[in-house]
Amino acid sequence: MTETYERTERTFPTRGRERASYDRALVHSILDEAYVCHLGFVRDGAPVVLPTLYGRIGERLYVHGSTGSRPLRMAGKGTEAPGLPVCLTVTHVDGLVLARSAFHHSINYRSVVVHGTAHQVTDPEERRIALDALVDHVVPGRSSDSRPADAKELAATAVLRLDLDEVSAKVRSGGPNDDPEDIALPHWSGVVPVRKAHGTPVPADDLDPAIGLPAYLPGV
Amino acid sequence: MTETYERTERTFPTRGRERASYDRALVHSILDEAYVCHLGFVRDGAPVVLPTLYGRIGERLYVHGSTGSRPLRMAGKGTEAPGLPVCLTVTHVDGLVLARSAFHHSINYRSVVVHGTAHQVTDPEERRIALDALVDHVVPGRSSDSRPADAKELAATAVLRLDLDEVSAKVRSGGPNDDPEDIALPHWSGVVPVRKAHGTPVPADDLDPAIGLPAYLPGV
Repeated sequence: MTETYERTERTFPTRGRERASYDRALVHSILDEAYVCHLGFVRDGAPVVLPTLYGRIGERLYVHGSTGSRPLRMAGKGTEAPGLPVCLTVTHVDGLVLARSAFHHSINYRSVVVHGTAHQVTDPEERRIALDALVDHVVPGRSSDSRPADAKELAATAVLRLDLDEVSAKVRSGGPNDDPEDIALPHWSGVVPVRKAHGTPVPADDLDPAIGLPAYLPGV
Repeated sequence: MTETYERTERTFPTRGRERASYDRALVHSILDEAYVCHLGFVRDGAPVVLPTLYGRIGERLYVHGSTGSRPLRMAGKGTEAPGLPVCLTVTHVDGLVLARSAFHHSINYRSVVVHGTAHQVTDPEERRIALDALVDHVVPGRSSDSRPADAKELAATAVLRLDLDEVSAKVRSGGPNDDPEDIALPHWSGVVPVRKAHGTPVPADDLDPAIGLPAYLPGV
């Protein structure tokens, strides 16, 4: 496997080309750090964008939902179904970039955009590891410390797979790009860092007090 | 104006109806707190979802971009143009919800989904206040402490407007919904809070040291 995704017409940006990357390791790291993606699909000719959890196993992304949910019904079932054309996007905001000019205000960010066709997974073993990956994406190591889905839960859950094939990342970092003639203006210029923070875990009301905080929790 | 948005077929969820809300104040608060939205549109029949900055003035959202960018070109110019059908989505992750069962894992979140048609703004005064709103959305009060766009910058910037008309919010909060028969299982159950945190502002390398941190910066 090459270290980069192949650039396509869809993943070659019309603007900000210097920020684009096709590096697999960078794409994976951006995908693995986020909790939700924004999944876009077309319904009755109009776009729909919904936030959803996801998981990654190698070059495959998985999303799941009720078997009754719209995008999962639209994808059809099995590899013989046409599948659902989707665009799956993940974004981290890393900083607020304040320039002397309103025009050069920006944000530092890292994003990944995946184009492709999502297919419903029917293979029981692939469904099982995909559902584990979805849980472990939120808290690594958690799937092995929870009750696995039973037959009824599995029957109610649909899993969609989207292969990482037509993919690009975009990254903006660093300070503001002020125009030279603006440097002497009296306005503050710089970056306000933004990050995700975890608070102290809150046990469920009905949790047995003898069960302590697992070491795998963020914020512990 | 009523206190709620009218529910439509598109904003009435097939799943998780108890989490849906059409309350204007809630929708506004979710929109005002996020830095980026995910803007979906259809290109050559396929969905595209891109992260972008936005601003809100009352019941109007504004996004901007280079006049050469794809969605802005696709929208056409002026109110007589057909505009661009879009779906604009904003999501906050507030917590990781760990249940005893893998099936009941979830996240606490607040999201807003806006359906509609975006039109390019041509009125110079509306363009000006929209660009101020975009800057003030990132850091309230900042537009009046920066150099306004000049004629050349204005000519290079396209502004799209999307009216808040077909809108819904979705909110999940609280602890895990474990099945009664799972309560006695030995797995930790509860919520890990997640929030956005601001770091100490980093001045630009070329900033005059006499210019102190403005009080309007987050993290100050």
